[in-house]
Amino acid sequence: MHKKLFIPGPVEVRPDVLEQLSRPMIGHRSKDASALQRRISDNLRKVFFTESEILLSTTSGSGLMEGAIRSCTAKKAAVFSVGAFGKRWYEMAISNNVPADLFEVELGQAITPEMVDKELATGQYDLVAVTHNETSTGVMNPIKEIGEVVKKYPEIVFIVDTVSSAAGTKIEVDNWGIDVCITSSQKALGLPPGLAVCTFSNKAKERAEKVKNRGFYLDLLSLYNFIQKKDYQYPSTPSIPHMHALDYQLDYILNKEGLENRFARHIELAEVVRAWGRKYFELLPEDKYLSNTVTTIKNTRNIDVAALNKELGERGFQISNGYGSLKGKTFRIAHMADCQMEDIQELLSNINDILGLE
Amino acid sequence: MHKKLFIPGPVEVRPDVLEQLSRPMIGHRSKDASALQRRISDNLRKVFFTESEILLSTTSGSGLMEGAIRSCTAKKAAVFSVGAFGKRWYEMAISNNVPADLFEVELGQAITPEMVDKELATGQYDLVAVTHNETSTGVMNPIKEIGEVVKKYPEIVFIVDTVSSAAGTKIEVDNWGIDVCITSSQKALGLPPGLAVCTFSNKAKERAEKVKNRGFYLDLLSLYNFIQKKDYQYPSTPSIPHMHALDYQLDYILNKEGLENRFARHIELAEVVRAWGRKYFELLPEDKYLSNTVTTIKNTRNIDVAALNKELGERGFQISNGYGSLKGKTFRIAHMADCQMEDIQELLSNINDILGLE
Repeated sequence: MHKKLFIPGPVEVRPDVLEQLSRPMIGHRSKDASALQRRISDNLRKVFFTESEILLSTTSGSGLMEGAIRSCTAKKAAVFSVGAFGKRWYEMAISNNVPADLFEVELGQAITPEMVDKELATGQYDLVAVTHNETSTGVMNPIKEIGEVVKKYPEIVFIVDTVSSAAGTKIEVDNWGIDVCITSSQKALGLPPGLAVCTFSNKAKERAEKVKNRGFYLDLLSLYNFIQKKDYQYPSTPSIPHMHALDYQLDYILNKEGLENRFARHIELAEVVRAWGRKYFELLPEDKYLSNTVTTIKNTRNIDVAALNKELGERGFQISNGYGSLKGKTFRIAHMADCQMEDIQELLSNINDILGLE
Repeated sequence: MHKKLFIPGPVEVRPDVLEQLSRPMIGHRSKDASALQRRISDNLRKVFFTESEILLSTTSGSGLMEGAIRSCTAKKAAVFSVGAFGKRWYEMAISNNVPADLFEVELGQAITPEMVDKELATGQYDLVAVTHNETSTGVMNPIKEIGEVVKKYPEIVFIVDTVSSAAGTKIEVDNWGIDVCITSSQKALGLPPGLAVCTFSNKAKERAEKVKNRGFYLDLLSLYNFIQKKDYQYPSTPSIPHMHALDYQLDYILNKEGLENRFARHIELAEVVRAWGRKYFELLPEDKYLSNTVTTIKNTRNIDVAALNKELGERGFQISNGYGSLKGKTFRIAHMADCQMEDIQELLSNINDILGLE
């Protein structure tokens, strides 16, 4: 039996989107491929509220995160982490011999603009990397406010992991001063995993031009230069099925559902899950840092999360246990992509039934 | 109108394979994902005639090529190139600050075992990188014979790009002494682009353990270690649709068509295209280095290749112009994956009709 996914990626994908993956192949050096990838880029600019170029990468979000921190750090990167995925950015820098410092907060806490200001004031850094939405804790960092601080330091290239938030919550890339804003297909965009996308500002481009040893496949500058020269074709063969599905889904998001409606639906879903979480348990993050796409709930009733998920599985649902050290101590319900209110209500009433809550 | 693809990737994909891409999503940290990826690895070992571990990467073949040369060169890489894709390997090394030398032959020529022996005798190198099947020229290098030479030098890690040949022609990874044998989904495996696979020998693993700064997403050793620990799950979310399609296609290749039948069909198709090429034009490579998956034909009649392809397009077919400096001077017909004799005959008779050949 298929389990409807309420995990923070891969998300449940609509059948009409899945069908797009099965379209017949086209050559990646054809005019059709250029037109397809140009249209995707134009539409993604609307999703990200940006004039920057868009880069598409046949990798998971991690591929572009690594590409961004490696391609755009000339001096030293300041990585602000609120959990597993923030820390990953630091590991990526170190494993590429890119100088970096890691600044962490306790799990469930957020990064504050003041914290960023304090570190940037040292003048050591030329890049700031932050996670927008940390799926391990359900924390959504105040990127707009952090962006205000970053703007005071003209040398800084500002790169943001919006893997589990973009297309589910409003991210104004240009207004917030984001140079590289990264997401991947299997989260709020509502596609299967296999494709990552990012914005790439002129400032990021100019920085990359000064960085040596950027590698090949994940080098953002070489992707940028290639698509300028070759009319939105890429150096290596991309995942054409994902391009077809993304193209179709962007039309749905922008022209069928509407971007603002999509953001509003995510907030409505989040509020229902939060209210349920507060009623029976507690929420991990502070109220002002709650994610709009995934809610992390403290296991204050000491339930057996694995057993709950097993029983949910038999009923056709799947949620997530806590991540890493939070396993058993928290559990997570994702409410993103094309998840509807009736899906969430069906899930919560099944959990209530299994746990005997009322 | 859909154009049936006779280009050296992406290839035409069977509709029943395409359908597999549309299967509902599953979590990448589920038992189902482990079982799926373990089964794929077991079956790929049969395709490659190896006992080595298999690594799966959500990238094009280039991603794993870069990962291999970077992860497995401790001293210096010797790259033997017969065209665009061989040269790419050298660029990947240099852009990662990996010491490497490039040895090239004229376009249409092959690498000989003697050439490799001569360079390895200098004692400078600890890795050899070669392309098996160069799609730009239609040359298939004598990897078995090169492997015999490489075996004389126990320090050498032998990495081979079989992107456009694996699953279309027999490659005996263990017998030939190949440590990392790389391919990708959109060639003779008969899938859409978006996934790359490689074999990873113990020797390659032990070498990678000595190499620093292997990066993150393309680090073969971290992929290897992660799948050992996490029962064939990967560090980043992989392309689940490609996993489903590859699993299905491997069952077809091994149990429906049969591996030896598949190899034999590729030779039969190649012979028909070669005979046609010799009758009306000339073939670019020497007879003994002709590829079993793609034939590069010299444009001795000085036809307008672009115009031919345009007219073929209107009839629902697509072939390839020459690559890079060979554009216009050659053209290429691929005959790989699930291409059948009637497909090739239909294509050739349409070309004859357009060009007025008989």
